[in-house]
Amino acid sequence: MKRLAGSLLLILCILSGVQATPADSLLAGPKYVLVIHGGAGTILKSQMTPAKEKAYIAALEQALKAGYAVISKGGSSLDAVEAAVRVMEDSPLFNAGKGAVFTNEGKNELDAAIMNGKTLEAGAVAGVTTIRNPITAARAVMEKSQHVMMMGAGAEKFAKEAGLEIVDPSYFYTEDRWRGLQRAKAQDSVKAQLDHADTAKVSLLGIANHDYKFGTVGAVALDKAGNLAAATSTGGMTNKKFGRVGDAPIIGAGTYANNATCAISCTGWGEYFIRLSVAKTSSDLMEYKGLSVKDATSEMIMKKVPALGGDGGLIALDKDGNMAWPFNTAGMYRGCITADGKVEVKIYKE
Amino acid sequence: MKRLAGSLLLILCILSGVQATPADSLLAGPKYVLVIHGGAGTILKSQMTPAKEKAYIAALEQALKAGYAVISKGGSSLDAVEAAVRVMEDSPLFNAGKGAVFTNEGKNELDAAIMNGKTLEAGAVAGVTTIRNPITAARAVMEKSQHVMMMGAGAEKFAKEAGLEIVDPSYFYTEDRWRGLQRAKAQDSVKAQLDHADTAKVSLLGIANHDYKFGTVGAVALDKAGNLAAATSTGGMTNKKFGRVGDAPIIGAGTYANNATCAISCTGWGEYFIRLSVAKTSSDLMEYKGLSVKDATSEMIMKKVPALGGDGGLIALDKDGNMAWPFNTAGMYRGCITADGKVEVKIYKE
Repeated sequence: MKRLAGSLLLILCILSGVQATPADSLLAGPKYVLVIHGGAGTILKSQMTPAKEKAYIAALEQALKAGYAVISKGGSSLDAVEAAVRVMEDSPLFNAGKGAVFTNEGKNELDAAIMNGKTLEAGAVAGVTTIRNPITAARAVMEKSQHVMMMGAGAEKFAKEAGLEIVDPSYFYTEDRWRGLQRAKAQDSVKAQLDHADTAKVSLLGIANHDYKFGTVGAVALDKAGNLAAATSTGGMTNKKFGRVGDAPIIGAGTYANNATCAISCTGWGEYFIRLSVAKTSSDLMEYKGLSVKDATSEMIMKKVPALGGDGGLIALDKDGNMAWPFNTAGMYRGCITADGKVEVKIYKE
Repeated sequence: MKRLAGSLLLILCILSGVQATPADSLLAGPKYVLVIHGGAGTILKSQMTPAKEKAYIAALEQALKAGYAVISKGGSSLDAVEAAVRVMEDSPLFNAGKGAVFTNEGKNELDAAIMNGKTLEAGAVAGVTTIRNPITAARAVMEKSQHVMMMGAGAEKFAKEAGLEIVDPSYFYTEDRWRGLQRAKAQDSVKAQLDHADTAKVSLLGIANHDYKFGTVGAVALDKAGNLAAATSTGGMTNKKFGRVGDAPIIGAGTYANNATCAISCTGWGEYFIRLSVAKTSSDLMEYKGLSVKDATSEMIMKKVPALGGDGGLIALDKDGNMAWPFNTAGMYRGCITADGKVEVKIYKE
């Protein structure tokens, strides 16, 4: 009987051993090569028209395919994230490039950052108003200067000298965002009359203004050489004042990539993401605490950010092709594509 | 015999128990309440005149005493770091406020950041040219706005509305820094003729221009309530172009404070500090890897920063009053003061 039990145990051990490899690869899931987001916020199905939903899905798929075309041909993750973000910058649907939200002064001030996980090289621009694709300017800062971050008129001068496409500020105008600014100003005026702290937050998070502070776009990619890259681009916060800079162009806050851990692009209430260095801390939770990409990013988005009073989401891809896209808002425009070309696009919480 | 041995063991245990408390407190060392820096770089005794050395020591002592006056009276670490940094901003000796280095266009563009370790609130300004004390503007951003970072003309408008002292840009002019710009331009011209990559680095690090990219000032403090704070202020890099932003105003890169770990202010080649999120990563090494403040900051400054090709230093103070001030350059203007008022000021490597 004892011998029988021992033999059974041995058989069980062997079986579990045999099963280990397929079970592990099943647990690891498909290998992702590109993940994108088009902003997190109060995105509710009840507020969406079928036509608008269809347009967002089409734009996200187009961005995914632009990035995938690079990766599948053996191109670099840097080229892939830049290509995907450029599609979203050129689309009026997202708060980046054309379609960016307006500042209090009625201007479009754009921020972007990019990072190379292989070399830890990074580039960023903040508060630029004439560069058609800020993500390409961020990349030029990374590759064609000794600097990491440039701001305002200086960054625009650099982009022009680097041969990037310069546009008239009116290029970024969209009727929808202009109306958003008028709504935000009207709400701020009500808020000022009420002089009530909670109202300020309600105003910032108002369902009618789901794009009031959200709508950043971003991409993370893993190429065939095993290199990670991350890119983020945004118009910032509707009605923003005083040259406010959010988390998107801050390396470590809204954007980070390191081949040893993961690539990350964030979206949300930028101030909280800066105060917690959300992107770098996620990477550090993997490197120094041994957490998986899912657990590390969930720790930040589902615990630390809301504990401080903030909200938003992020996309992340680790060096083994595991991905995570946690968000604590009603929705986040997001999509991913695996090595075999399988596309998945989502908008709402599931 | 057995009983005797047992008794001896018991006595030894008691003795070691009795000794534990003083030994531990001896190991912990004196409790520091304020640490400051006035920049790291190629600071060599052979390049220094006795008068200049004396002036630096006096200025550092004055900054330490300004911060200590706050702490010793039960004031907050935030007030202390702001007071200490203001002294250095007002001194023409340091590359912050008056005495800041010049940009390529012959302007003084100032950056600063401050962070409250208790609340993780933070404020920063970048590229400001008319605010007498940028550190006070950073604090106003933290306390009087919903934002963390403001840049350029917007930040200046905010500072003016907040009632801060506005000065004509000529206030920041010093003859010494102006000559530094002319030297840097001459060197850049030689560099351009040689068109040699290594020369670019030599030029950036040239002994004749030890202030070419260094000279940031900063302070970290621990108050009687156990709250940590960090502050950093800088004029950036001599001859900087294109609205370059360094690490000083980037929360997580050049500045960070968290009561759970430490307060940090960095100085050095900012681009490398941004790419590694040096301040936040030091904090994460303590929080997630259990390193001491000395080991965590040494890991960044003596290993990770030079491994990437950068140089510089930082000051750090943990929640228990342990301090560290690693640097991998020839020198770093630095000083500290303990709870009992004992001052220590140093310039060169030891």
